[in-house]
Amino acid sequence: MSSISEGTLVSTRIRLARNLEGYPFPSHLKDEKQAKEIIRLVSSGLNRLDDFRLYYMDGVTEWEADALIENHMISPALIEKKHYAAALINGDRNLSVMINEEDHLREQCIIKGLCLRRAYDKISDIDSKIGRTIKFAYDEQLGYLTACPTNLGTGLRASVMLFLPAITLNDNMREVVRSISRLGLTVRGVYGEGSGAEGYMYQVSNEVTLGVTEEEIISQVDEVARKICTLEEAERMRLKTGSARMGVMDKCMRAYGIATNCVVLSSEELISLAADIKLGACLGYLPIEHVSSIDDLVSRMQPHNINQSAGRQLSADERDVYRADYVSNHIKKLAEHK
Amino acid sequence: MSSISEGTLVSTRIRLARNLEGYPFPSHLKDEKQAKEIIRLVSSGLNRLDDFRLYYMDGVTEWEADALIENHMISPALIEKKHYAAALINGDRNLSVMINEEDHLREQCIIKGLCLRRAYDKISDIDSKIGRTIKFAYDEQLGYLTACPTNLGTGLRASVMLFLPAITLNDNMREVVRSISRLGLTVRGVYGEGSGAEGYMYQVSNEVTLGVTEEEIISQVDEVARKICTLEEAERMRLKTGSARMGVMDKCMRAYGIATNCVVLSSEELISLAADIKLGACLGYLPIEHVSSIDDLVSRMQPHNINQSAGRQLSADERDVYRADYVSNHIKKLAEHK
Repeated sequence: MSSISEGTLVSTRIRLARNLEGYPFPSHLKDEKQAKEIIRLVSSGLNRLDDFRLYYMDGVTEWEADALIENHMISPALIEKKHYAAALINGDRNLSVMINEEDHLREQCIIKGLCLRRAYDKISDIDSKIGRTIKFAYDEQLGYLTACPTNLGTGLRASVMLFLPAITLNDNMREVVRSISRLGLTVRGVYGEGSGAEGYMYQVSNEVTLGVTEEEIISQVDEVARKICTLEEAERMRLKTGSARMGVMDKCMRAYGIATNCVVLSSEELISLAADIKLGACLGYLPIEHVSSIDDLVSRMQPHNINQSAGRQLSADERDVYRADYVSNHIKKLAEHK
Repeated sequence: MSSISEGTLVSTRIRLARNLEGYPFPSHLKDEKQAKEIIRLVSSGLNRLDDFRLYYMDGVTEWEADALIENHMISPALIEKKHYAAALINGDRNLSVMINEEDHLREQCIIKGLCLRRAYDKISDIDSKIGRTIKFAYDEQLGYLTACPTNLGTGLRASVMLFLPAITLNDNMREVVRSISRLGLTVRGVYGEGSGAEGYMYQVSNEVTLGVTEEEIISQVDEVARKICTLEEAERMRLKTGSARMGVMDKCMRAYGIATNCVVLSSEELISLAADIKLGACLGYLPIEHVSSIDDLVSRMQPHNINQSAGRQLSADERDVYRADYVSNHIKKLAEHK
């Protein structure tokens, strides 16, 4: 793996969809009692063995719920199911099991960088533990049964988040999307569905879950992610030497200048500044070694994470001031420490 | 004069309109020969005595002409009169006499800061020297005769350039313009006629030239400029303590961040960044002591002044890169040296 990949292969996410035999899918549950029964069944095995905590969706504060969504541990849809839903989340906040979302179980592992196999192993381990005390709805022909047919079979969605500024700025993203969809994979912009202009962040994942093995899915997504990364590398060379060179450098340096001097900073603007600062670091214009530390910063500066570190619920205006102060100091240090 | 005035009272300009007796006004000159005769008459006395150089408008290169316009030594209208027009300009480039523009003579002195009397004395001295060998068109009743009746009488236009960010941002400029016009003076935005939003620069000058003495005009413009300066000072206190406080600080700090990091910078953007940096310095957000040095920087970074210091005619793109580099180094130094 080349050195450029650190900031490019941002994170890996593996998700398994499972359902319990003998129970209707979550959208057809009889009553709250039946939902709670499923929650109890699922959590009984896991809760004891591992460092997991059970969150009932009718028991979390709005603040907690928003923080969990922000960190991708639960979906907004789960919250809406209030009395019917719960989530098991580990202490490191990289493993979660949503209960009674679209399926009875949505098991998920998120890890930094490209590590599909490791993430799959981790979540498989959880899946096995739960499977010891529960019988999953499984068909010899079809595999795991899911509420939506797009998840049938393996119930596996393997995703990689990629930072692709050069492909985006050189206007080649459309072509990449086209090639990838021919392979049965999908790419979508993480910020601003489809356009992907802001943040230069894209998620590549498998479309097909049926008729392929877990191993095949993971191999394919891994291979494609690495190929896109190599293409991005080539496109960065073009960006550094092409006619838009000074404009790109200017864009990166201005983002650094604003981020290190602003007094008010929204989380949306931070996403866009961070992307240009990362690009500047990747192209060698900014002396920042660990590009991925900027991703951590963006995540730490999301509204509810700020509330958490401030120890109280700040107003939006207060957060923008807090964020500007924190970000400017942090980025200055990152650029010094090289 | 308060300490705040340094960057606020930017510059002083005195202009006298004069015409020669026995010659038609420039727009009615018989031929080139007659125009050249006037040029010779005017320049004969001055050229020898002082550090003045005569520029024939049909003799300057386009490059020279643009540089002279940029530094306010001549008007664009003068260039257009090619074979008919000339200008006498001193070595320090603060005194100029345009010959055969709208009037036979337009004598002008520009000095930094508020110093109407000194500027008037300087240009009066030139006026007297020229008057020794030439008879000016003068009427006992009306005073100096001019091509346009708005200059009749004294032929004097006394102007002060003011930097008024707080009055502008607090949205009180309209009220200032109204009060001043009641006194027979005018205010206009220096960049973007009327709006004055960009650069926060305004020029205050006398409207009336007839029926008042030179002394009265100068006293009045001086007094009004000082009053506006005091008002600006009060408005800055409001800006520092009011609800828009953080937004204003953010604006200033971002301008500093961009100016000290950009790689490409147009002269229009520099005007706007420089204005916010000056404001930041005036409000104590940026450790820059000599605010007026930023005005010098803006002037030095105008297109033709850049060509001059680079020693060759740069393309617009090259200038934007040169400007970004020069400005970022210079502003960093200004903020360090305090």
